[in-house]
Amino acid sequence: MTAIENMGAKAKEASRFLATAGKIKNDALIAICNAIKENCESIIKANEIDIENGKKAGLTASLLDRLSLNEQRIFSMADGVAQVASLADPIGTVLSGNRLENGLKIQRVRVPLGVIGIIFEARPNVTADAAALCLKAGNAVILRGGKEAINSNKAIADIMRNAIEKSGLPIDCIQLIEDTSRESATELMGLSQYLDVLIPRGGAGLINAVVQNAKVPVIETGVGNCHVYVDKTADIEMAASIIFNAKTSRPSVCNAIETILVHKAIAEKALPVIKERLDTKSVELRGCEETVRILGDSVIPATEDDYYKEFLDYILAVRVVDSIDEAIAHIAKYSSGHSECIVTESYENAEKFTQSVDSAAVYVNASTRFTDGGEFGLGAEIGISTQKLHARGPMGLNELTSTKFIISGNGQVR
Amino acid sequence: MTAIENMGAKAKEASRFLATAGKIKNDALIAICNAIKENCESIIKANEIDIENGKKAGLTASLLDRLSLNEQRIFSMADGVAQVASLADPIGTVLSGNRLENGLKIQRVRVPLGVIGIIFEARPNVTADAAALCLKAGNAVILRGGKEAINSNKAIADIMRNAIEKSGLPIDCIQLIEDTSRESATELMGLSQYLDVLIPRGGAGLINAVVQNAKVPVIETGVGNCHVYVDKTADIEMAASIIFNAKTSRPSVCNAIETILVHKAIAEKALPVIKERLDTKSVELRGCEETVRILGDSVIPATEDDYYKEFLDYILAVRVVDSIDEAIAHIAKYSSGHSECIVTESYENAEKFTQSVDSAAVYVNASTRFTDGGEFGLGAEIGISTQKLHARGPMGLNELTSTKFIISGNGQVR
Repeated sequence: MTAIENMGAKAKEASRFLATAGKIKNDALIAICNAIKENCESIIKANEIDIENGKKAGLTASLLDRLSLNEQRIFSMADGVAQVASLADPIGTVLSGNRLENGLKIQRVRVPLGVIGIIFEARPNVTADAAALCLKAGNAVILRGGKEAINSNKAIADIMRNAIEKSGLPIDCIQLIEDTSRESATELMGLSQYLDVLIPRGGAGLINAVVQNAKVPVIETGVGNCHVYVDKTADIEMAASIIFNAKTSRPSVCNAIETILVHKAIAEKALPVIKERLDTKSVELRGCEETVRILGDSVIPATEDDYYKEFLDYILAVRVVDSIDEAIAHIAKYSSGHSECIVTESYENAEKFTQSVDSAAVYVNASTRFTDGGEFGLGAEIGISTQKLHARGPMGLNELTSTKFIISGNGQVR
Repeated sequence: MTAIENMGAKAKEASRFLATAGKIKNDALIAICNAIKENCESIIKANEIDIENGKKAGLTASLLDRLSLNEQRIFSMADGVAQVASLADPIGTVLSGNRLENGLKIQRVRVPLGVIGIIFEARPNVTADAAALCLKAGNAVILRGGKEAINSNKAIADIMRNAIEKSGLPIDCIQLIEDTSRESATELMGLSQYLDVLIPRGGAGLINAVVQNAKVPVIETGVGNCHVYVDKTADIEMAASIIFNAKTSRPSVCNAIETILVHKAIAEKALPVIKERLDTKSVELRGCEETVRILGDSVIPATEDDYYKEFLDYILAVRVVDSIDEAIAHIAKYSSGHSECIVTESYENAEKFTQSVDSAAVYVNASTRFTDGGEFGLGAEIGISTQKLHARGPMGLNELTSTKFIISGNGQVR
């Protein structure tokens, strides 16, 4: 048995205990919150090593920022864990039930998934966030974070493990793989004997590697090539406001937009207004021929490839379309299936767009930036699924569960 | 583009039409039913070639029986398709919805999965069953059946394709891969660009091959190593009746039992009664030492391997356990997570068993043979999922769907 297989076996064992644990899960989460706050100094010290290594390795300023922890961020991370404790426990919820003619009583009941693997990149706060959500939903978790944050992750995981053990949970409800080699990630992806699901949290490269290599069920998250379509009946001011918000309020996140599609009948009027708003944040535009014709040479000609890109930056692709059908077809071809918006005053076109566009979240007259577990009222979020199986869109505690049927009889045979 | 990639692209295109199709889906299903009946003779002729080839290839009598079609079976298959038309359409169902403080209205709505791949073995009726369920739930389907049934499958698929095209659906809503080589199955498992889910229907060998090779999301089905635990408080007559039914009413199906676990305090009394019932069907018993001691030398000593086996035959493993906890631990170790039963008169033990056993269906005092879409009232069944992601237990139309969020606003930004 390899080290990681051994972790899998221990997680499976721990998950059996967790599956029927009740209030003790909340005690453990509160204990984690307190322990993280009490050990804030030691987390900061471990994080300083990561930051120093990151600087030596030449990480960008934005990566270093994501990596870095201070007292405020650590306390906020701890409070997040306590907040998860305050959410309703999904386990045991009866989702449906009925009595059959033969007298059998059938109930469908929410149960934990079992063991969840999470592969993530440089943000050490994911260690606490993800572990807290998995634990609350009754799952053991095996975390495998990026090498950049390994010292911070080890410190946080050790604190959490000690805290839950003191609360009476098996220590292996939370485990961290300390080996950050590519091989350890690949081995985790193949751990089908022990892992019930694997959730990769990171960029397109990580997600694709997991989809190609995993032997366990995967929930893909977070790649967002999102669109706003400006219909010919759109309120131009509203369109400009939504596009400005969806592109510039936080360009590095998955619910930010990457391409706008503008109906040709409104393009001459709308594009200059939209550009004027975006210019205030120096957004680079990459447009089709018609866009360049209307807006002039400051627009870079877009390549086919640009329409597939998740820029995650102050860059926006622009295309003028002949019809709403062309906009829907463009989205079907290029989108990652995350979030799309139509800006329209037409009832018919709003209905057509929301029915025909096949993405996790489809908006009429609102910014795609709302696709978020917190905004949707889920209380907390483990990620945003862009696949269709099991969970789609923002995933909260319910999406970390499965169900089973419980059938009660008095001797029925078939 | 390979032939199978081309089928994938055509299926994706067809699925976009199907996603918003309403009544036309039912028209197409009725047309399929009628066309199958009208072309019964040609299906029988095609099936005769498969039977002849099967005899030459030395297929067993039971395999030949599964493979063989006659007028009665074909009409029953056709009526099954018409029955699917009569079920409620799951697409468009609003599963939840609310209005946020900022005025945004959020709805979670049922939508099709998109393109479903089905890999199955020698039963040609799966071609019509699976296609009908996929179509009703708004999904395009790519079927890949076993080589033994290829002529029957081609005949049925051609009839279905022509029928749906006449009804106004794209002909490629239903496609059959005619290449029955191992390579064609492997290519289908890797078709992540076009396939939203792959459902293997067959034995453990097929399921494992799919889990190991698939790059697309998979729903595992149908491997059932099921158990009955006879508690020390059990009604012995009831236990014998449930065990007899669960083992012998149809040993070749996944919800039949393979092992019984008997509490040591009741074993001396219960085992002879159970054996007497099973002897009427000449069931071979493979027992632990204690079982052999109680029942004598007619019981074959069980190996460790026997407890992992899905015999699918008149063979039953027997083990005497010291406690309900040992029974639960045995099931956790050896079960495939399909269906398990406790026979007990104890409220406490019934609660403990149903809470602690982590399988798709957990029974108190009833035969595991009830784990079935029809018995559970789903109307029809595409298979029985033994995984925890997306669907667990019998899968009906709802399990062939996904959801999306539709968010309606009037200019909200974040």
